[in-house]
Amino acid sequence: MVEIEGYAAPSEYDPPSYAQVTKVTRAQPILFIAGQVTYDDTGGLAHGRDFAAQARAVFRSLEVEAGGGTLANIVKISTVLTDIRYRDELVPIREEFFGKKTPAATQVAVSALGPPDG
Amino acid sequence: MVEIEGYAAPSEYDPPSYAQVTKVTRAQPILFIAGQVTYDDTGGLAHGRDFAAQARAVFRSLEVEAGGGTLANIVKISTVLTDIRYRDELVPIREEFFGKKTPAATQVAVSALGPPDG
Amino acid sequence: MVEIEGYAAPSEYDPPSYAQVTKVTRAQPILFIAGQVTYDDTGGLAHGRDFAAQARAVFRSLEVEAGGGTLANIVKISTVLTDIRYRDELVPIREEFFGKKTPAATQVAVSALGPPDG
Repeated sequence: MVEIEGYAAPSEYDPPSYAQVTKVTRAQPILFIAGQVTYDDTGGLAHGRDFAAQARAVFRSLEVEAGGGTLANIVKISTVLTDIRYRDELVPIREEFFGKKTPAATQVAVSALGPPDG
Repeated sequence: MVEIEGYAAPSEYDPPSYAQVTKVTRAQPILFIAGQVTYDDTGGLAHGRDFAAQARAVFRSLEVEAGGGTLANIVKISTVLTDIRYRDELVPIREEFFGKKTPAATQVAVSALGPPDG
Repeated sequence: MVEIEGYAAPSEYDPPSYAQVTKVTRAQPILFIAGQVTYDDTGGLAHGRDFAAQARAVFRSLEVEAGGGTLANIVKISTVLTDIRYRDELVPIREEFFGKKTPAATQVAVSALGPPDG
């Protein structure tokens, strides 16, 4: 069985909200998941400029695409925002899905995301 | 033999141009490929400001570096542009290499790329 | 035993400072490492605006988190700067840890990084 363990090395700061390392043993198979955006049924962008609704829809899609409807097998999250000020609003929404501590993570703000079918 | 399958979960929007998930089973070995830029023979940047020529050269290099001259084993594409407006111009060029649908993908625009040997 | 080999395809430009491809055979287990930032002991940001000190602290943390205190098993580096002009200053510091040639690499500049616990 696959084993997934999150930790920080003893000498390093252990952030409350994410693991420094996710160690995966006996992983087989592996899923590579596309960057999740909020599609409506016709492929347009859903939820307009409602950040909270967009964020929830993205985590929900991730949960579904992760297979078996569970986030327990996610080993790395890369969060890409277009404005870093949304970071604070993201925290409680992420906790609804991942709890207080996520697997190994990165977070950056970029100038634009590829829109649907971009 | 390695099996590579692209799909979207039944409840999710299935984008025409990329897979929501690439599932890899029995992958062995794994190639991690550097961000591809357009080098000339001396390590300078080739193709100046010609976006289409740069994009084709990048996909061609990817094809060569992917081993065996095939893109069929690529499981995830991360496209990084410096101006999101090039996204439309990218679509037909990407199709020359990947066809209508790519594996799991992300696309962002950033303020700068690391130049050759940066 | 795991085998890790960096190379460029014969027809491609072989950059002096990084491998075009890192090929991993028999990798088991796999570590996914979070984006490294410079924490002080209480989770605040250490080293203020001292780029060189920040960069050294990040590579040192990576070395520790990589397990066994070695960078020899790192297969891909993604460097994210907030100002691409720091790229030149990064090169000699990276060499202190990785030597003249790193594994497969990407480097971009973004508008912001997720701060500690962001």
